[in-house]
Amino acid sequence: MAHEFDAAIAHTPGPDGRYDVRLDEGWHIGGGVNGGILLSTLAHAIGTQLPAKPDPLVVSAHYLGASVPGEATVSTRVIREGGTVATAEATLHQDGREKIAVLATYGDLGRLDGEVRTPVEPVAMPDPDQCIPADMAPGRTPPLMDRFDLRFDPATIGWALGEPSGEGEIRAWMRLKDGREPDPLVLLTIVDALPPVVFDLGYRGWAPTLELTAHVRARPAPGWLRVRAWTTNVAGGLFEEDCEVWDSTGRLVAQSRQLAMTPRG
Amino acid sequence: MAHEFDAAIAHTPGPDGRYDVRLDEGWHIGGGVNGGILLSTLAHAIGTQLPAKPDPLVVSAHYLGASVPGEATVSTRVIREGGTVATAEATLHQDGREKIAVLATYGDLGRLDGEVRTPVEPVAMPDPDQCIPADMAPGRTPPLMDRFDLRFDPATIGWALGEPSGEGEIRAWMRLKDGREPDPLVLLTIVDALPPVVFDLGYRGWAPTLELTAHVRARPAPGWLRVRAWTTNVAGGLFEEDCEVWDSTGRLVAQSRQLAMTPRG
Repeated sequence: MAHEFDAAIAHTPGPDGRYDVRLDEGWHIGGGVNGGILLSTLAHAIGTQLPAKPDPLVVSAHYLGASVPGEATVSTRVIREGGTVATAEATLHQDGREKIAVLATYGDLGRLDGEVRTPVEPVAMPDPDQCIPADMAPGRTPPLMDRFDLRFDPATIGWALGEPSGEGEIRAWMRLKDGREPDPLVLLTIVDALPPVVFDLGYRGWAPTLELTAHVRARPAPGWLRVRAWTTNVAGGLFEEDCEVWDSTGRLVAQSRQLAMTPRG
Repeated sequence: MAHEFDAAIAHTPGPDGRYDVRLDEGWHIGGGVNGGILLSTLAHAIGTQLPAKPDPLVVSAHYLGASVPGEATVSTRVIREGGTVATAEATLHQDGREKIAVLATYGDLGRLDGEVRTPVEPVAMPDPDQCIPADMAPGRTPPLMDRFDLRFDPATIGWALGEPSGEGEIRAWMRLKDGREPDPLVLLTIVDALPPVVFDLGYRGWAPTLELTAHVRARPAPGWLRVRAWTTNVAGGLFEEDCEVWDSTGRLVAQSRQLAMTPRG
């Protein structure tokens, strides 16, 4: 039952809210360990400090530098715990430097009221078996891509063949390849696991994230996640990337936005 | 030349990155001091610590409780300063409690490259003189509304007359009433100054923000700001609100997203 996702975000608790972690080379991508699995790792540690507020509702991460596979330390501090929500801060240190700083507000998604009034619809995509598996991509794929069963919408995969659509959007079905079903911690990885959306505008290369904020709005149902990522603003060497994640029941379970550096390549 | 906006965000520097501030009752709204002017106040203090990185590029704020007019303290700490960006944390304390926790990444918007490739267009609205001034709103308006020359798009102001459009969107032209031209600090107030977008879905009442992240992408040109706020997800007693701010030249100068509590009223 040792799913590779859970192994990747595992920690050894220490004193004073500190956790030792080991960043796994299997989640490497481009210039460092994927920002999504790092976010899940930090959120896992924060959640351990907040047993009565099990779910991340909103997590804001500022990335100060690339993290590499190997030992690292997560330091957490609960800033305030109230009746229904709690806010905490956390940092990831590696090689004596702060690599990521996080603020997070936690609660209990199971205790929210049942109202769902979502003005937008799940993005239209062909069924997974009509989509393009990531392992059919030409060339060598980074280790991160092997962690997922990932099926690209054919309409947004032209960039892999040198023919970007120019719309700045990438859509895909995603689930973990090891069979682990999605939960809020998995969603924090999913929102930063697709290739940078600017690939669909013709850019290629490493696109380091400066900041990413994710909202987790419901515990996802088992099965495929429907993921849409797009940009509305590429300017001044930076781009904004939005991501929506829908579960297999058609519920909008996560939304994220990041500010990243436009690749120079 | 003492613009009321600058008076509202003014501070008295103390030791160790601390600043004494006085929250102004003129920016009160519903259950407390407006989250936008608080964000500008915190960002102003952080910027004072980072003379070589004058502009907030991305600011993430978690709101722990309402702030009231009167004395408060802002504590800042620079986490890391690099060649082109720096990241800092800040908190606002009042009455012995942490009210807001912020992470922010700063840089120099004047040194970014001139590329602008923004896939979206400025939202269409009638000219300001064809829009509805906020001071024509029925009933008593909160103090915050007096700080702006604010003109609502007639298509998105039906909620003020009990006829919400049901689209979950509010559009308006905005500028400071005292004549101060916009800059990055003003943009941080603008992204949280409109009424909650859920008013356009028929909700009324106080909608406290849990978290707001704003990207500032360019120093705005003088003149009117074109502001669009909308929601894509109202569920479980929480709603997401996005905001875009365009300057008078048609440049997308700021984007924000917040997670807030849906009014019970």
